This record gives sequence, C-alpha cells and structure tokens, in this order.
Amino acid sequence: MPTYQAPVADTLFLLNDVFQWNRYSNLPGFGDTTPDIVEAILQEGARLCEEVLQPLNITGDKEGCVRHADGGVTTPKGFKEAYKAYVDGGWIGLAATADHGGQGLPYTLAALINQYSASANMAFTMYPGLTQSAIAAITEHASDALKSIYLPRMIAGVWTGTMNLTEPHCGTDLGLLKTRAVPAADGSYAITGQKIFISAGEHDLAENIVHLVLARIEGAPAGTRGISLFIVPKFLPNADGTPGARNAASCGSIEHKMGIHANSTCVMNFDGAKGFLIGEANRGLNAMFVMMNEARLGVAIQGLAISDVAYQNAVAYARDRLQGRALTGPKSPEKPADSLLVHPDIRRMLMEIRAFNEAASALTIWSCLHADMSRRSPDEKERQKSDDLLGLMTPVMKGVFTDRGFDNAVKAQQVFGGHGYIAEWGMEQFVRDARIAMIYEGANGIQALDLVGRKLRKDGGRALTAFFAETQAFIKENGANAEMTPYLKGLQAGLGDLQKATMWFMQNAMAKPDNAGAGSYDYMHLFGLTALGYMWCRIARAAMEKKSADASAAAAMDAKLTLGRFFMERMMPETSAHLARIQTGADTMMSLPAEMF
Amino acid sequence: MPTYQAPVADTLFLLNDVFQWNRYSNLPGFGDTTPDIVEAILQEGARLCEEVLQPLNITGDKEGCVRHADGGVTTPKGFKEAYKAYVDGGWIGLAATADHGGQGLPYTLAALINQYSASANMAFTMYPGLTQSAIAAITEHASDALKSIYLPRMIAGVWTGTMNLTEPHCGTDLGLLKTRAVPAADGSYAITGQKIFISAGEHDLAENIVHLVLARIEGAPAGTRGISLFIVPKFLPNADGTPGARNAASCGSIEHKMGIHANSTCVMNFDGAKGFLIGEANRGLNAMFVMMNEARLGVAIQGLAISDVAYQNAVAYARDRLQGRALTGPKSPEKPADSLLVHPDIRRMLMEIRAFNEAASALTIWSCLHADMSRRSPDEKERQKSDDLLGLMTPVMKGVFTDRGFDNAVKAQQVFGGHGYIAEWGMEQFVRDARIAMIYEGANGIQALDLVGRKLRKDGGRALTAFFAETQAFIKENGANAEMTPYLKGLQAGLGDLQKATMWFMQNAMAKPDNAGAGSYDYMHLFGLTALGYMWCRIARAAMEKKSADASAAAAMDAKLTLGRFFMERMMPETSAHLARIQTGADTMMSLPAEMF
Repeated sequence: MPTYQAPVADTLFLLNDVFQWNRYSNLPGFGDTTPDIVEAILQEGARLCEEVLQPLNITGDKEGCVRHADGGVTTPKGFKEAYKAYVDGGWIGLAATADHGGQGLPYTLAALINQYSASANMAFTMYPGLTQSAIAAITEHASDALKSIYLPRMIAGVWTGTMNLTEPHCGTDLGLLKTRAVPAADGSYAITGQKIFISAGEHDLAENIVHLVLARIEGAPAGTRGISLFIVPKFLPNADGTPGARNAASCGSIEHKMGIHANSTCVMNFDGAKGFLIGEANRGLNAMFVMMNEARLGVAIQGLAISDVAYQNAVAYARDRLQGRALTGPKSPEKPADSLLVHPDIRRMLMEIRAFNEAASALTIWSCLHADMSRRSPDEKERQKSDDLLGLMTPVMKGVFTDRGFDNAVKAQQVFGGHGYIAEWGMEQFVRDARIAMIYEGANGIQALDLVGRKLRKDGGRALTAFFAETQAFIKENGANAEMTPYLKGLQAGLGDLQKATMWFMQNAMAKPDNAGAGSYDYMHLFGLTALGYMWCRIARAAMEKKSADASAAAAMDAKLTLGRFFMERMMPETSAHLARIQTGADTMMSLPAEMF
Repeated sequence: MPTYQAPVADTLFLLNDVFQWNRYSNLPGFGDTTPDIVEAILQEGARLCEEVLQPLNITGDKEGCVRHADGGVTTPKGFKEAYKAYVDGGWIGLAATADHGGQGLPYTLAALINQYSASANMAFTMYPGLTQSAIAAITEHASDALKSIYLPRMIAGVWTGTMNLTEPHCGTDLGLLKTRAVPAADGSYAITGQKIFISAGEHDLAENIVHLVLARIEGAPAGTRGISLFIVPKFLPNADGTPGARNAASCGSIEHKMGIHANSTCVMNFDGAKGFLIGEANRGLNAMFVMMNEARLGVAIQGLAISDVAYQNAVAYARDRLQGRALTGPKSPEKPADSLLVHPDIRRMLMEIRAFNEAASALTIWSCLHADMSRRSPDEKERQKSDDLLGLMTPVMKGVFTDRGFDNAVKAQQVFGGHGYIAEWGMEQFVRDARIAMIYEGANGIQALDLVGRKLRKDGGRALTAFFAETQAFIKENGANAEMTPYLKGLQAGLGDLQKATMWFMQNAMAKPDNAGAGSYDYMHLFGLTALGYMWCRIARAAMEKKSADASAAAAMDAKLTLGRFFMERMMPETSAHLARIQTGADTMMSLPAEMF
C-alpha cells in the first residue's frame, strides 16, 4: 500500500525563504496569513489528505464508480464521508470571495491544498477541483442574480460544478459543437445536445450539480463566435435556493477508463434542459476560458502532485529493498545486500524526479502568486504584468508538468522492478491516473500551440519580454556570487537556447506557420526547462542564505543545492536537443504525403 | 476496437533489399527459403495473427486469467482454440532443431512471426514465446535423455515452458536465492522454495508445463556460484512420455497487474517437487543465460511490436478524425474540418513512432541474422563475430526498444485525445501491456549495466570494435554518394558521440566505477540511437536502389527516405544530450546522503 506525507516543510521554505511571502501582505486576504497561520492551514489540509483521502485512493481505483439504471452514479465506498470532511473543513471556498461565503484567503494557499489533495487522491480531488473552477467562471461572468443563487452553495460545497465542452465529434475544435440553446419566454434557454467526457458529471456526493455548458443559441453564427455559456443545474433551484424540479440533464453512461476510476466520467444528455446564460451571448468561450485557465493550472498541479507521491513511495522502497552491492564495494556488509540507494542508476531516476518536483513546486507558487497579484494587486500595471506572466506560464506548466509527472510516475514505478507492475503496490495506479492529465483540459499538443501561436505574440510579446527581463535581472543581480555560478551558468544556457528558438520562430514561422507548429512541442519543453532552471537558481540562493543563517537547516539546504546542481548538469542539457529539433523546421514532416502514413 | 495488419511488405523489403537474404543461403535451414517461400511463411503467420490472435487481445485483457481453488488457472475465452491453431501451424517449432521435430528454419523467421504475434496479442504470445526460450536452453544444456523426453513435446507445443528465477526477496540479485535442491537416490532432486512473477506458470492451454527452475543444491556455495538449473515438470513424464504423476509444483496465486491480463503471472510453490538437473551443478546461471538472452531479444521485439500496432491505429484515427484546420488554410474545405494529419504536431508524434519502427525492424533482423550466423555458420570466426555482435546488441535492443515501445504507445494514445484514455479504443491497453517489457527479463537499468559493465569490456572490447568497424566501413563505402550525405552525416554525428562516451568511460570509470553506473542508461540510449541511425543508412541506400530499379516502388521508397531524414534531423540530435549527461559523471548524484532522499 502506498503512503503519502504532504511536503509542508518544503512548501514553507518556498513560501517564506524563496518567495518571501511577507512581501505580499498588502494584498487583500494575505494580511492575516502570518507564517504561523499559513503553517497551520497547510498542516490542517495535510492531515485531511494524509488521513482521509489517501487511504481511499487504492480502494477507490479498485471499486470505481457505478451507474445505475436510473442514471444515478455511486462513488466508491468512503467518498461521501471524505467529501463531507472536505466540505466541513471549508477547503472548497478557501480562496473564494467572502461576498458569498468564501474565506477570501490567497489562491496560492488553495492551490497548495489542491496539490496535497491530488497527491493523496487525484480522482477524489477532481470533484472539489472542478467546483472551484466553476466558481471562478461564475464569479467573473455571471449576473448577480445567478451568483447569489449558485455561489454560496458551491462555495460551501453542497453543490458541485462541472464543465461541459466536448461532444462526440469535437474536442479541441469547439467551433464544430452542435448543442443547441433555444430561448424561452422566461429568459432561460432550452438546452439540447450530448456532451462526453464530463468529469464529475453525475455522482452522489452533493445535493445538486451545476453544469457549465457550451451551446449555440439558435441562429447564432457557426464556428467559435456563436458559442454561449450556460448554467444548467441538475435540480432547478426553488425560490428559497433549495433544489427543486429535476432538470432534463442526465448521465447516459460512464466511461471505462485507464485510470481515475473513482471519478465518474459521464456522457451527459441534455434534452431541452433549462439553462441560464452566463455573460454575453456568443461570448461563451471567453467566459469558459476563466474556468479552463484555472483548470489548466489545476491539471498542471496534478502532474506535480503525482510525481511527488510517486517519488515518496519509490524512495521508501529503494531504502528498504536490499539488492546487489555498490559498484565500489559493499556499503552494508553486515546485511545480505546493499539498499537500492547505492546504485547510481536508481539515484539517477529518483533525482530526476525530485529535481523536477522541487522546481515545479516553486514554479507553481510563482504562478499562483501571479494569479493572486493579477486579481488583488492595487496597482493596475502590476495586475497586468502578473496576468501576462500567468497566461504565458499556464500552457507551459500544463504541458510540461503533466508530461513529466507521467514520466516520473513511470520512473518511480521502475524503481520497484516487477513489484511496480502489481496493483497492490499502488505504483501502476499513479501511472494510469497521471496519464489523463496529459490529455484533458486541452491535450498537451494544444498547450504547445497555445503557447507558440497565441501567448508569445499576444500584446506584442509583452509577457515573454517580462519573463526574459525577470530572469536576466536575477542573473545580473547574483552574477558576482561565485557560489551561484553553476546554477546561473545552467540557466544562462537554457535561456540562450530559448531566445534562439524564439528568434528562429520570428524569422521562419511568420511566412510558414507550419514551422511554428512543427517546433511548438519542443519549444514548450524548452521553455519549461528554462523556467524550472530559473526556479532552481532562486531555490539555490535562498538555500545558501538559510544555511548561513541557520546551521540546523544545513543538511536539508545542502540536499537542495545538490539537487539543483543535478538539474543543471543532467536535465538542462536537453534544451540543446529541443533547439536543434525546432531549427529543422516543418519541411521534412510536411513532405510525407498523407496517404503514405 | 483496434485493428492490426502485419507489415509483410516492409519485412520483405528489409529481408530482400536491405539485408539481401539470398546471401545467407549457405546456412543450414536457409537453403530452401527462397523469396517466395519466405513470403508464404510470413503471409501465413500474418493471417493467424490478424484473424485469430488480434480479436482476442481486448477481450483477453478484459477477462483476464482466473485461478481456481485447486490451483488451476483458466485463460480467457478463445485462448485454448487460438493456442491450438498456433500449435497446429507448427509455429512454435519453426526454428527448432529437426532432430526433435522442429522445422529447422531460420531463427530470423521465427522472430518475425513472434513480432507479428506480439503486435496482435502480446499476452497470448508469451505462452509460446517462453516455450521457445525454454527449448533453446534445454537444447543447449540438457542431457540427451532429458532432451528426448522434453524437446519433442515442447517443440510440438503440447507442453509449454516457463522460467523460474525471481523470489520474493530477490529479482536482479539472484545470488540471494533460497530455493533448495536436495539430491535424491534416483539422481533427481527435491526442489523446495517459492518463485514469484512466473509468467505462464499455470494455465489450461497445454497438457503439461515444464518449469526451468534455479535452485541451490544443498551444500553449494552461497551467491551466484552455487546456483543450478533444473527441469521441474508439472506432471512427471511416464516412461512412454505421457504426463504421469502430479509433481509438487503448484500455483499459489496469480498477480493482479497493470497489463498483460491474459497471461497468468503466478506465485509458484515448489514443495519437494521432483527436478532434473540441466547442465553442470552450480553452473545454472550459465545455462539459464541461454534462455534469458533469447527471452531478452523476444522482449525487445515486444517493444517494437506494440509500437507498430499502436502506430497503425493512431494513423487510422488521425486520418478519420476531422478536427481543426491546417495552419496554412483549409485542406478539405468541403468538409467541416481537416483531418488530424494536417497538423504538424500530430505528424511529429506519428513520424517519431514510425521512424523508430522501421529502423528497429531492421535492427531486429540484423540481430536475428547474427543469431542464426552464430549458431549455423560453418566458419568459426564468423560464428564468433556474430555471437559478439548479438551479445552486444541484446541489452541495447532490450532497453531501447522497450523504452521507446512504451513511449510510442503513449504517443499513439495521445493522438486519440480523450478517446485514447477510454478502454474500448484499445490504445490504453497497448500502454499498459508495453509497460512490463521495460521491467521483466532484467529491468532496463540492468540492461544498461550489462552493456557498460560487461559487454563493452568483454574480450578486450572485441564486439564494440567490430560494430565500429562495420559502421565506419559503411560510411566510407557510401561516402561518395551525395544522396546519402544527409543520412551518413547523422550517423557520423551519433557515432562520434558514442565514441566520445566510450572514451570517457575508459578514462573515468576504471578507477571510479560509479561513473560507469551513472552514465550507463544514457550510454544505452546513445548506442541505440546510433544503431538505429546505422539501420536508417542501410534502409536509405536500399530504398534508393529499389527506386531506380522499380518505378512502381517509388512512392513507398520516397516515404522511407523522408522518414530517414526525419530520424536524422529530429531524433539523432538527442545523442548530444546523452553525451553531456554521461560526461558529468557520478559525483553529484553520489554526494546526496542516503538519508536525504
């Protein structure tokens, strides 16, 4: 049975030492979050994740969800009680606006709790996670009347949320969607169509389910400019806010999937269901993007979360398992064999995972702080800059964290040898669960296109310029510190490749857009490595400072400094292969005739 | 439902045009295999795989194997009939010695049929596949008396084989094994112990199961020098060769695994079971290595096989699925959207898979021909050289083909978007099945150590010298051909990195063996890329020749030439990152204290 311990100490080091949390105390909601309070919140969340959610992970996978003849869906044993504990702890509304019952605390803290929660039980975490994303979209775009009905109940967790985009014939290409919305006399709409792959579309955890549904109002233009967003509740709220009549939105079947068995993935049938427009007609994609961007960050965090729990279990196994002798001679001659940790190739796998995990945890906080800044800063320029950087980094994190999260789950499984392939050890579940994160909320190839095709060019490249300025300022500021040299050199190399790749797109992809498409995936990973390298530089500097200030922290800080060097020596060099591939362009791949595939 | 079509035309191109099959007609068993005969054999095998085995793949996964209270195991519906068809076709004994009922045909042809079979149904193929490996070990090391009892029945497929190495506390480190063998008065041994992860350990396909079991004879030295190999049949053969008394070898349980559900993975309990020594006492590992080497090549082929069938299905989906428009403007304006094949990133994924598949198919044939030469050539020097090259390439192929086979299954799944995650499409099964190939028959980290720690140094580096000489001779021979330049340049670059890495080990790993361990995995992949690059050069030359000789082949040959360029432009550059990692050595990774993981 796998175990999980939330990395609270590492999180606190990042918040306090690397990002100097107290510098944000001017932002609404941050003021009361002294280090003690933050630690208490994280510890409380950690306890729930470790004690309640984690034990249900493997049983939930085995049992899965069951759809009944009446269209109802039962979640695995223990999920109702766990969801109640989650709701009772106030975790869903942690960062939601106090206007509707939220706690108004920093989004960054909510994201960290979600990270712990996804490590403990990814399938479970999707129920509250999607609710939080739906809350964000409703908060930003719905009318006050809709807000006052839906937000308090969703923030309290008694109602949950879903996002309904995909249809059988269209996923990425939403312009093709066929679900129709017919205006009714009372200002509502009758929604008709079929949506597939709807996570948490039907379940037994909450008294109502609030579907956010993309549909085309009769007579609206074809393509993406004729799509509107609707709230379609499972039960229509009564005037007093209690769930009333059953709406014509039902689960037609649930999918049999590779993983996340404990999350119900539904085919949703809307048969003239009553829906309420959110935001402007035909601007639904715009409104849905609020939910999608938040969900994409959430999915990125899932990649990190699985990588972390997989690492923890692989280390525990490697420590306990005695097999073979060190190449340099027995390390534990008194035992029948040495532990797996003496073998360089085992260390390679573990350190590749952890060198990602620590930097990715930092990048998560960096991005979430920008999310908080973009919404809460009193300074408009700061809000805009943070929004730029968050928008730039979201596809990078979604693509890179989920690709590496999956690869790392595979590596952690490999440490177990044959036992990694056996269900009872739980490692193969991490692999199966992690796999979906590369696909949903926009497959990673789409993230790469979003980065290269939209985010780079947006506002004249303002976001990218800001990112380059920040990293270069850091290099300059620390250049005189000789201890920092191995870290800064690595970052400089990655940054150089990233700049060359960007330049190559500017020179070669304007006239030939396939050159951008052909290099987009490599560019996303090149960007990710560079951003992670930047995080390692910041971690290294903070670790050096903490070490000299506090001798008791030396061993832990030295470990971080070693991992950072490992990252620079062994992971950063991949940027050159990415650059080489980008610079070959699209000619060869586009020259293969379609019929010859 | 996935489909499969055996790539017979591609195989024939490799056999006839790239490797000039007729040059081997002097070898025993090759004489009668004219191009027509070879094609007929491949077509007949392909039909069985496509029509009988492939339809059982997804149902076998869903149903799995069932162990009953009496220790018996039932395979999924249809497997008995399929196994009978396999046996009736004479496929198990295709390459086995005619002395005991085999057909004595080239091992290369048997390996190709196994490739098709593993594409169609990997879990099924393990039953006959392990039997073939056991036949090889018995043929090479058992006494004539044992051979005459076991070989005819195993070659006919009425009895199947297994390999019993792993115990709960030891997998890689076989020196720790505890299973005991006590000599009996009749010259047999009483075998007692528990083995785990025994593929095909118990099933209902054959009338008897022949376990090859590693055990320690009482009083034998500790460690690997005290291990002997035994035949332990499920039923003790009567004098007339029919199965007699039930032996005390039974299946205690079967494992619940990530994939290959249709293969029964057993805990085998030996409770004083009667066993018969194969080869010399205490030299069991040596004898088992015959089986392991053959099985490792077989597992490498599984990696390729899954990659091939995953590619085929991903292409079919990409062709049919209409989603989005080409970046350069609509390609099918009459349809609601273009096919996925217009998107560069989709092409990237598909071409990465196929650029591997075609070169890996070539390397498989190159290696299998060396296996045939090493056993059948009349020239001792030729036998030795082939044995050297096969021994060198076996860990490379096992490690690289199975890593890439898995990665490619993941990529093919990614092409399907959300549908790739749903069981009914079959893509997620390919991923789950492919995963085990990276683990069993020696986890891939062990292959890398075998390569770097043993195969490079063996006989003063004779094998590596031969490989370098062959590739350099090819470059020299074709250097004047300008059309070959893009291919040779890529190979030269890879070869240069491989030579630098080898030199680095010579200079840095003798005194510090951890430097070899730390770079072994990268070295294995660097070697694999170089060997695949060499294959692409040979394919390219043959394709150019075929194209000018036969205009009707031009389109297919041009596709190969394009794929070869793709490989050189986009996959070969990875060698530089591997080299950079190798050259960083072990210091950083070994300096992290074990307690800080």
